[in-house]
Amino acid sequence: MLGNFTYCNPTKLYFGKDALEGLNKELPKYGKNVLLVYGGGSIKKNGIYDKVLSILKENGKEVFEDAGVMPNPTADKLREGVARARAAKADLILAVGGGSVCDYSKAVSVSVYCDDDPWDKYFKRFEEVTCKIVPVGCVLTMVGTGSEMNGGSVITNTEEKFKGGRVFDENVYPKFSVLNPEYTFTVPRYQMISGIFDIMSHILEQYFSGEDDNTSDYLAEGLLRSLIRSAETAAENPTDYEARSNIMWTATWALNTLIAKGKTEDWEVHMIGHAVSAYTNATHGMTLAAVSLPYYRHIMPYGLSKFARYAVNVWGVNAEGKTERAVAEEGLNKMEKWMKKIGLVMNITELGATPEMLDGIVSATVINKSGYKVLTAEEVKGILTASL
Amino acid sequence: MLGNFTYCNPTKLYFGKDALEGLNKELPKYGKNVLLVYGGGSIKKNGIYDKVLSILKENGKEVFEDAGVMPNPTADKLREGVARARAAKADLILAVGGGSVCDYSKAVSVSVYCDDDPWDKYFKRFEEVTCKIVPVGCVLTMVGTGSEMNGGSVITNTEEKFKGGRVFDENVYPKFSVLNPEYTFTVPRYQMISGIFDIMSHILEQYFSGEDDNTSDYLAEGLLRSLIRSAETAAENPTDYEARSNIMWTATWALNTLIAKGKTEDWEVHMIGHAVSAYTNATHGMTLAAVSLPYYRHIMPYGLSKFARYAVNVWGVNAEGKTERAVAEEGLNKMEKWMKKIGLVMNITELGATPEMLDGIVSATVINKSGYKVLTAEEVKGILTASL
Repeated sequence: MLGNFTYCNPTKLYFGKDALEGLNKELPKYGKNVLLVYGGGSIKKNGIYDKVLSILKENGKEVFEDAGVMPNPTADKLREGVARARAAKADLILAVGGGSVCDYSKAVSVSVYCDDDPWDKYFKRFEEVTCKIVPVGCVLTMVGTGSEMNGGSVITNTEEKFKGGRVFDENVYPKFSVLNPEYTFTVPRYQMISGIFDIMSHILEQYFSGEDDNTSDYLAEGLLRSLIRSAETAAENPTDYEARSNIMWTATWALNTLIAKGKTEDWEVHMIGHAVSAYTNATHGMTLAAVSLPYYRHIMPYGLSKFARYAVNVWGVNAEGKTERAVAEEGLNKMEKWMKKIGLVMNITELGATPEMLDGIVSATVINKSGYKVLTAEEVKGILTASL
Repeated sequence: MLGNFTYCNPTKLYFGKDALEGLNKELPKYGKNVLLVYGGGSIKKNGIYDKVLSILKENGKEVFEDAGVMPNPTADKLREGVARARAAKADLILAVGGGSVCDYSKAVSVSVYCDDDPWDKYFKRFEEVTCKIVPVGCVLTMVGTGSEMNGGSVITNTEEKFKGGRVFDENVYPKFSVLNPEYTFTVPRYQMISGIFDIMSHILEQYFSGEDDNTSDYLAEGLLRSLIRSAETAAENPTDYEARSNIMWTATWALNTLIAKGKTEDWEVHMIGHAVSAYTNATHGMTLAAVSLPYYRHIMPYGLSKFARYAVNVWGVNAEGKTERAVAEEGLNKMEKWMKKIGLVMNITELGATPEMLDGIVSATVINKSGYKVLTAEEVKGILTASL
């Protein structure tokens, strides 16, 4: 735990099969006008929309809608949402959906009472939030981003071809989130598996950094072990409640700042994955899966002891009589086997990338300076080539 | 993660060598009158008192004192503290000390604006907090109880010879806590080791319950592994910053509700330990250490697979070719070796208990109904006899 840090996470979570009843405790705390934010309408098919609406009505709320939030919410949609929230004089923004809907709702919440253009202010100039913030609540229907309990918000500017990420302070975190594992049962299998690797990647991006013996690393190993086991169960039986609930809870704790404490973090896999996404429009988690092993095999020599520790503590590799390098390699091989077993996409070709795209993807890749190895453009190209 | 639960922990933590500077961010949020609560005065010797007082003055605070909080704060002292807080018209209660000082401050905070006797209301009748609560902040100087980030409060009624425990809701949690690992360097070695086992016991009391494959168990295993490793380092070199900081952080997360989510919990070791304390006045953590192995060896057959898992995942026991029982036993043997190595007290005789006291201790032991085995009075006596 070297270094100085602060920790604060005030989001209240309602977890379990009856979690939605938490709305009855939360809604009375806010004013009459609720902006209900959701995506493409799957919540209307699976009945969640009706349930939420009926609880809102029972609590005497005036409901205004903001539908159609896309998987990568755009700056244009954000501006539209701000206008809708203003017209509604929203006292509460209720996000019902996955990470995108939740990310988007946070971005709207800090822009309603602000005169500047929200994209320019928060995602380009990275300005502080100084205006009044409309409180956000979240009913989660998809798992992976951790947005239900953090300040993260990712908005894409399609004109500028740029995906802008922002991490807001705890005053922007959802005030409450409803986590019912059963709501994730109807997510298509491909999205479920993709979300699982997004979670794994969040943990690994924090874990593979730094040299000290940090409690955060032990917590990360615990989350990884839980995720690995539950992912295998869920891949076989997506309606296994215990597995899906463990995955949901792991996702929340994988990216709510806890396991980053005292760490430098890496996030280069996400940077390469984002660039692949920009060229292929592939699902986020799958882009991470497709580039992870080439990336980790490349940086392994620069953080060898941590990769050996990963092999032993997470994958149960028996280190006896083996070199550190052999142990580390065995760990990544076990990870590869697991990835294939649960059905992850193992190369970017399958995601639509071609050799001709590589130079473009390389130049779109942001290079972080915090992991075990600061990559050169050539190294990024090598990793992408190995990912084809 | 079976079951429905809520999670909310709004305490803001300032961690590290510069953590005390966090007071400059927090103090302006509260009114002028601060009740400074502390114990026997060790903070005057190690300089922490002067540092805190100077920051309070710099922030224009009027400081009122409530000193002399004892290791097991009494109901009488609580009544005195309430009177002092009222006289001070306290806008903030600042606890500077260990778990007792922090526990005590929370009990004062919910009693200042309440007409009933605080012992009767909260620790005897277990009534809800309905009156205004004075906010509490904490500067931690001793590690173990987790009181810096939870709603726990233990008060002892000396007339009634009863130690009353209460867990308040998150509105009673400290608003902020300052965690500087260096402040724990001056704690005597015996207290440090005792605190380490208190932490371990908190984790184990939650871990050894239930049958499902729960993310909480994986997190608990991570905390245990971190604690075991850092305790060995700290036992050899108490001023190893990294080890002490990991221990401090582990203590906070061991008892701030996270790893109890989806669990039934046990707490029988604490019940027996409290009863031993009542008869011997021994240090809390040492009473837990002295009875833990006899207790766990006794209940092991009723939770065998969990004890085998504990052996493998926490103590690195190689399970190959062994029976579950042999693996489980090897784990507890490794735990025993570690306990002796770091210098824990391994029997209640060394704490002042005699065979003549056993019947009294047995009848003072509260029997919980949540662990792997609901004990009979005879079984408690057997465990105590094995602990002599």
